[in-house]
Amino acid sequence: MNSMFISLLPGLVVLTLGLGASSLRAEPQLPSWNDGPAKAAIVGFVEKVTQQGGPDYVAPAERIAVFDNDGTLWTEQPMYIQLAFAFDRIKALADKHPEWKEKQPFKAVLENDIKTLAKSGKRGLIELVMASHAGMSTKEFEKATEEWIATAKHPKTGKAYTKMVYQPMLELLAYLRANGFKTFIVSGGGIEFMRPWVEKIYGIPPEQVVGSTIKVEYKLKDGTPTLARLPEINFIDDKAGKPVGIHYHIGRRPIAAFGNSDGDFEMLEWVTSADGARLGLIVHHDDGDREVAYDRKSHIGRLDRGLDEGPKRGWTIVSMKSDWKCVFPHNCK
Amino acid sequence: MNSMFISLLPGLVVLTLGLGASSLRAEPQLPSWNDGPAKAAIVGFVEKVTQQGGPDYVAPAERIAVFDNDGTLWTEQPMYIQLAFAFDRIKALADKHPEWKEKQPFKAVLENDIKTLAKSGKRGLIELVMASHAGMSTKEFEKATEEWIATAKHPKTGKAYTKMVYQPMLELLAYLRANGFKTFIVSGGGIEFMRPWVEKIYGIPPEQVVGSTIKVEYKLKDGTPTLARLPEINFIDDKAGKPVGIHYHIGRRPIAAFGNSDGDFEMLEWVTSADGARLGLIVHHDDGDREVAYDRKSHIGRLDRGLDEGPKRGWTIVSMKSDWKCVFPHNCK
Repeated sequence: MNSMFISLLPGLVVLTLGLGASSLRAEPQLPSWNDGPAKAAIVGFVEKVTQQGGPDYVAPAERIAVFDNDGTLWTEQPMYIQLAFAFDRIKALADKHPEWKEKQPFKAVLENDIKTLAKSGKRGLIELVMASHAGMSTKEFEKATEEWIATAKHPKTGKAYTKMVYQPMLELLAYLRANGFKTFIVSGGGIEFMRPWVEKIYGIPPEQVVGSTIKVEYKLKDGTPTLARLPEINFIDDKAGKPVGIHYHIGRRPIAAFGNSDGDFEMLEWVTSADGARLGLIVHHDDGDREVAYDRKSHIGRLDRGLDEGPKRGWTIVSMKSDWKCVFPHNCK
Repeated sequence: MNSMFISLLPGLVVLTLGLGASSLRAEPQLPSWNDGPAKAAIVGFVEKVTQQGGPDYVAPAERIAVFDNDGTLWTEQPMYIQLAFAFDRIKALADKHPEWKEKQPFKAVLENDIKTLAKSGKRGLIELVMASHAGMSTKEFEKATEEWIATAKHPKTGKAYTKMVYQPMLELLAYLRANGFKTFIVSGGGIEFMRPWVEKIYGIPPEQVVGSTIKVEYKLKDGTPTLARLPEINFIDDKAGKPVGIHYHIGRRPIAAFGNSDGDFEMLEWVTSADGARLGLIVHHDDGDREVAYDRKSHIGRLDRGLDEGPKRGWTIVSMKSDWKCVFPHNCK
């Protein structure tokens, strides 16, 4: 028997004997993860909560897993990808807004001054994104997002942004779903920026995306019902906002949370401080060769408190350098 | 062959021949609906959007159906059920709030003055509910809701409120789900009041409930992470708020909407004005014998504009009297 035939065997057994999903665990899983404490923590957790009759068993309906997006599922360097989208839009709209030439953070955008922008902090950046995304219908915004994401390229790799996702995390999403988990994104990014493409890239449908929002108003425009995007922030889904966003949207306390920065701290704290088996995991960007090394002092994706307190709280710190065999799909062939 | 054996046959055929879900449509469906234009509109719509290769086919992921709750899935007479819950809580808390004795709408609650309360309108009632539900953690509120719903009785029938649901609508929910639809509640009621019990009663999980919300704050209480309910309205999911709530939570435009009052008008308008096959349906409370007859002049669940404009817009108006064989599960045996 050749190895390809052997790898088909567990599937055949399932088909023939009618065994349940648990048999599928014999299939290769998390192939881009090195054996080590991080992978062991993930697999150990999943096996515990799916073991029927076991002390840590969790019913499928309660197997909710929440993932940050920027820096956790796709790259956030050299800047949040939504910011690149915002920059392109602001530049396109600059003629209609002459005041932006002298007003921060718009001035920095027009001058490609990333350093000044970064200093305005994540909250300031979110405000910039929100402000630059209003004044159109939700349908128009969806179209603009789809067109941009289909063509824009990462400034360093020249790859489409949707290729700048982390292969090991894609495998983790699929592994959790194969074990009955419902996977959600809980991101500081704009909910409407993510929804048009996350299903195709991550397998997560729009209704399982939680994010920051601007005010939206329902009205008739020339007799046609429309949802207008107003230049006013509705909700910022970051830091202590993440457990709140989870509560509003999901209404269940998740049992697993995945993040990469201190913006995810409260989300991991909320998830892992409940009774029962819980998994908190932080992706640590320590791989300057294959991606970018940054943590405590970064303006984007700062990870400081999480590095200190995470291990004491039982959270798994993933070293991208040593826990991942490869980072992006194009490196994992 | 006895009849039980015959009823098993379609299932056996599916198992043996490996046919898809479409074969299951041969099973009795919507048994509590009389044959007539309403049932025909529902079945015709579902068959159109599920017919692979047909001109109106809709992929399963896009088969989103939204249901109002009060008056659409369960009774709202003689008052919104959440109000009965609020009354009980306000009475229990009255000693700590002496000012309520002179302040409307609290005064009306303490005096069981339903007429005055009804005059404050749905919006006023929602505010009352929100205000009376704050000052505790989300966990404490969930517990209070669960305890109340398990014991409280409808004032006229003496049945548990969870038995005051409409059997034909339960069948409609199940029929849609059997045809690949994802069913959501979109209610003016409080999201946290509904979530603890809707899964058991309607088969709708908490994450598929959209409703009105009060502000929630994440904080540490004696070192324990908690979500505190603040006495401040966050979002009112009624009238023009319903399409907005749908947009924030679901992020897809539904293809079917079910309501019973003018508070659902904009939701039906939003859903049915898009291109493609769409279903808008209004439950008309015209059955004074088996439930309560009310529409244009009712303070609760007023249906006026919808009655006039609905038919012109192609919406189906369900007569509870003539379209339903029975109303509540205990009448449908």
